[in-house]
Amino acid sequence: MNELKVTLTKNKKAKPDMKNVQFGKVFTDHMFVMEYDAEKGWYDPRIEEFHNFSICPGSAVLHYGSEIFEGMKAYRTSNGEINLFRPSENFKRMNKSATRMTLPNIDEDFALETLKKLVDIDRDWVPKEEGTSLYIRPFMFANDESISVAPISKAEFAIIMSPVANYSKNGLSPQKILIEDSDVRAVRGGTGEVKCGGNYGGAHRAELKAEEKGYNQVLWLDGVERKYIEEVGCMNVMFKIAGKVVTPELTGSILPGITRKSVLHILKDKNIHCEETKISKDDLIKAVKNNTLEEAFGCGTAAVISPIGHLFLDGVDYEINNNKIGDVSQMLYDTIVGIQRGNIEDKYKWILKV
Amino acid sequence: MNELKVTLTKNKKAKPDMKNVQFGKVFTDHMFVMEYDAEKGWYDPRIEEFHNFSICPGSAVLHYGSEIFEGMKAYRTSNGEINLFRPSENFKRMNKSATRMTLPNIDEDFALETLKKLVDIDRDWVPKEEGTSLYIRPFMFANDESISVAPISKAEFAIIMSPVANYSKNGLSPQKILIEDSDVRAVRGGTGEVKCGGNYGGAHRAELKAEEKGYNQVLWLDGVERKYIEEVGCMNVMFKIAGKVVTPELTGSILPGITRKSVLHILKDKNIHCEETKISKDDLIKAVKNNTLEEAFGCGTAAVISPIGHLFLDGVDYEINNNKIGDVSQMLYDTIVGIQRGNIEDKYKWILKV
Repeated sequence: MNELKVTLTKNKKAKPDMKNVQFGKVFTDHMFVMEYDAEKGWYDPRIEEFHNFSICPGSAVLHYGSEIFEGMKAYRTSNGEINLFRPSENFKRMNKSATRMTLPNIDEDFALETLKKLVDIDRDWVPKEEGTSLYIRPFMFANDESISVAPISKAEFAIIMSPVANYSKNGLSPQKILIEDSDVRAVRGGTGEVKCGGNYGGAHRAELKAEEKGYNQVLWLDGVERKYIEEVGCMNVMFKIAGKVVTPELTGSILPGITRKSVLHILKDKNIHCEETKISKDDLIKAVKNNTLEEAFGCGTAAVISPIGHLFLDGVDYEINNNKIGDVSQMLYDTIVGIQRGNIEDKYKWILKV
Repeated sequence: MNELKVTLTKNKKAKPDMKNVQFGKVFTDHMFVMEYDAEKGWYDPRIEEFHNFSICPGSAVLHYGSEIFEGMKAYRTSNGEINLFRPSENFKRMNKSATRMTLPNIDEDFALETLKKLVDIDRDWVPKEEGTSLYIRPFMFANDESISVAPISKAEFAIIMSPVANYSKNGLSPQKILIEDSDVRAVRGGTGEVKCGGNYGGAHRAELKAEEKGYNQVLWLDGVERKYIEEVGCMNVMFKIAGKVVTPELTGSILPGITRKSVLHILKDKNIHCEETKISKDDLIKAVKNNTLEEAFGCGTAAVISPIGHLFLDGVDYEINNNKIGDVSQMLYDTIVGIQRGNIEDKYKWILKV
């Protein structure tokens, strides 16, 4: 592959007001982009002014959903440094997604070096306000200019970045969650364990239905038995039941979240009993009814920890932990955010400085 | 909505050599396009020169697979007329896909009128050579310029057209099919019964694996029990067992094909016993073993009827009907193609003239 070419823009944009910025709508001055061709491999890697793609109407990405992405963040520390949180995990997972979707793999080390360079160039875009960060979106899509359902021979890889405030308008305030018992997000043998477009577009209907009923998100059940808990919205989910934290085991239709992995690591390190296992809807109802469901929360890059305060199950709305964030949830949030922001010692070596 | 605006190109392209044209790679001179905004509805419908889209890197279509499409064809009759085959069925199905994916619906009558106009403008592109046709691809995608997983408020609808020869290089020659017992195309509650991108991108891996083993396509099993036959490649599938034609019933994860519907209609009209039912892998193996599996074929717009000559099941390659097209398959092909090409009376009123 030829060398990374950097062309800086002469048209720097104004930064947004971080108090009113909408999630994922404002992009920084620069982007990274490179192309793939089955014969040449990846070529023309470059950092240049953020700009639209010119895409053929026949391009595979507009028809066949051959598209994958990652999400991570750059954080401003109190002393003005910039921290990335486990970014190599994202590129490793991206290659797993690529392999599942028959998209080409990328060189993970090159991607990481390029990302550092890109964040450095746009470092003024990493916001300083509390709770804010620079959301980073690496993504890849098939770009064969043919509507034949055929093997992928052209692709595009890009990294764009967007300054964001907290993902949820309510910050750490508990969410109201509805069990989705009709629509299915994923099934083993499908694409649920990788980060591809198809997992998201098909989920909108259930999300809208939940919102109409006054809930923030859905709790997804497995596609085979429609019985076992899988994810909450676009996050992994965890429950503290009778003193033990449990989370759905990775059975092939659940995304192996990097926040999930970090949470499990912290719990083990702090000697809090945790387990990856199958959790049925009935287990959950039983725990609510006998008052052993002490905490419930989603975890993911965007929100870090998102406490669940209400759970709508089989026609009944159950309140969890008096609709307040629980101690373990709060500890996990404080620990991860503390590490990300440089306020807690990075004892696990999760931070990469830019 | 404002009126359809037509701007003809001054740069007409050369037509391809239909003997060597690749499926779906050459596009006609013009395309139809219009935009959607949640506040305005659909606007600026126009026929104009075929051109690339300018798409924001943050557009939902590049990340979340919010994209649907249809496929149909315009056929040149022996006396030079142009026939469309049941096009209103496609727009009806497209709206079902849109609803499932929370994309906006279109006015089906308007879409049909526009399609006729577009085909008429590019009527020289409907090829005359035997087995050729003009493939028509209506498609729609979300185009919100935001990487937030949020309700869709902007969309693009377009129709592009591509002159094609027979879909399969081998024409009506029987295909070799492999049962896929690991990857899953769709599951009830998912998006398998609509025509959206996610159903296709996730299927590539299994298709490539089949090709590596010397097979043309895969036979998909249901996602719940991995036991019942669903589709073959991107087509519906039918079997003639002991004199009766059977096809998987529409249980929620199978596309309701327009060719499938037409085939069932013809079979009933000709008093050939047919049934929509659950067909297990074991049923199929039993039928092969006791010599009652008389014919097997895929059916869809691209190939019309695609006979299956070899079926690889549980480690054994079974030959079907001596690897020849069967009588019912041939009759169905002749009838549908005859109607499409204007060589058989259109007694079912399936043809729309352009």
